[in-house]
Amino acid sequence: MSRPPGANAELALLLELSGTPKPGNVDRQREYADLTFEQFLAGAVGARAGLDDAADGAAVGDAFETAVAGMARQDGGNTQFGALLLLTPLVRAAATDRLTPDGAAAVVDETTVDDAAGFYRAFDHVDVFVDEPPDSMDDLDVRRGSDAVPALRERGLTLADVMAASAPADGVAAEWTAGFERTFAAAASLLDADGPLSERVPTVFLDLLAAEPDSLIAKRHGESVAAEVTERAAELQGADPEAVTEWADELVADGINPGTTADVTAAALFVALERGLAV
Amino acid sequence: MSRPPGANAELALLLELSGTPKPGNVDRQREYADLTFEQFLAGAVGARAGLDDAADGAAVGDAFETAVAGMARQDGGNTQFGALLLLTPLVRAAATDRLTPDGAAAVVDETTVDDAAGFYRAFDHVDVFVDEPPDSMDDLDVRRGSDAVPALRERGLTLADVMAASAPADGVAAEWTAGFERTFAAAASLLDADGPLSERVPTVFLDLLAAEPDSLIAKRHGESVAAEVTERAAELQGADPEAVTEWADELVADGINPGTTADVTAAALFVALERGLAV
Repeated sequence: MSRPPGANAELALLLELSGTPKPGNVDRQREYADLTFEQFLAGAVGARAGLDDAADGAAVGDAFETAVAGMARQDGGNTQFGALLLLTPLVRAAATDRLTPDGAAAVVDETTVDDAAGFYRAFDHVDVFVDEPPDSMDDLDVRRGSDAVPALRERGLTLADVMAASAPADGVAAEWTAGFERTFAAAASLLDADGPLSERVPTVFLDLLAAEPDSLIAKRHGESVAAEVTERAAELQGADPEAVTEWADELVADGINPGTTADVTAAALFVALERGLAV
Repeated sequence: MSRPPGANAELALLLELSGTPKPGNVDRQREYADLTFEQFLAGAVGARAGLDDAADGAAVGDAFETAVAGMARQDGGNTQFGALLLLTPLVRAAATDRLTPDGAAAVVDETTVDDAAGFYRAFDHVDVFVDEPPDSMDDLDVRRGSDAVPALRERGLTLADVMAASAPADGVAAEWTAGFERTFAAAASLLDADGPLSERVPTVFLDLLAAEPDSLIAKRHGESVAAEVTERAAELQGADPEAVTEWADELVADGINPGTTADVTAAALFVALERGLAV
């Protein structure tokens, strides 16, 4: 008997968390003073109800808001907002037997203005690090949370529209607009790899980080830092594990956290679990 | 807004797992080749549906069977059977506003023959290490699983009766018959202690191990080994953390796993979370 999609989504969050070393991120061996391993555990457990809702047929925006509200019931602040934004439509796709790039794109296409409102309401529950919006989107600054919903309704924007507007600067939104391309490719890598899961997860994480600058790093530290991190990740692919571990400690010390790459890793783990990844 | 009892119970399993060093047990730093950290994560996630059932009013025996069946959906075998046997009645007690020693004892007293049947059916889902039963209980050997249910019904034994019969040799059953005395005391310790949760959990674990021989070690390796482990744990209370870590590695190398102590630690974490333990 297999796990239901909501359970697999939660397990994906926990497996992502536990993979080590994941340079710059909280993992089994390292954490930040104000963002602990235990807080990520609580975030994943709290998100479960919303993930189950997504599987049971709730609207994507409502399910996402419920997941974020549950995630936020711990003292570390934002732990898995981006990962939940990827997982919610993927859970819906899985629950409706279309967990493929086309199927996930269809879930995105079906989103409504109400779903966009749920996405904005989710920002009421937790502080999320985001860029300043472009001037044309000022009334839709996500930091306004539910206060932005009237403007959203006036413009008639669906959640797919909102993600498309964010995609150029945000790696999670870019997955929404591109059929979750990186997610599905990383899931295939997880399934094809040999060796224990505890080694496959950090390998896939490093591969994703080496392939594309992390958008959370770019927002927080600038594009040149994000580019440097990507370059260094590429150098370390296949390197001595100790070199990766050393770099992981360095990035945590510098507070450079490739959060978007972790989000895509969690989403890839979900797809792989749905396709039979053994635990 | 607080987490519901089923979520707190799952989180308790994950926090217990993550506490390190927990000598002899799988934790954030060590695992067994055939019983991994990831399998404990999957066990906790899988158990959630049964824990939620217990909160929502399902019979204790049915909820326990559902939790164990979900827990068993990973390749490591038994990960948290004993912990779930403690958590299920405690979740029920919490969901009915009586999470006290007296309230938990009342939940135990209310168990029926049907609950006992659910407990036996749970053994159909996973291999659990148990002692040979006494001759008088041969027809009620738990390893018979659901095949023992007719004998159980003929004798009219409730789950409380079954636990009372097991209590002399089993630390989990002993909690059932004693108002979860060790569980509530350890919960108070978790709440009263200073310092990060990541330090409180291993401290409470070591204190429990130092106070009473672990019944899983006694069953697997004999009472003298269990007594030696308890003696050594007492020597290491308050010792240099490196000495505890060294001993943790030794016990894992020898396959000496204080599973009952981990079960009580998880149950104590649940009570502490329900009483406001911050994460």
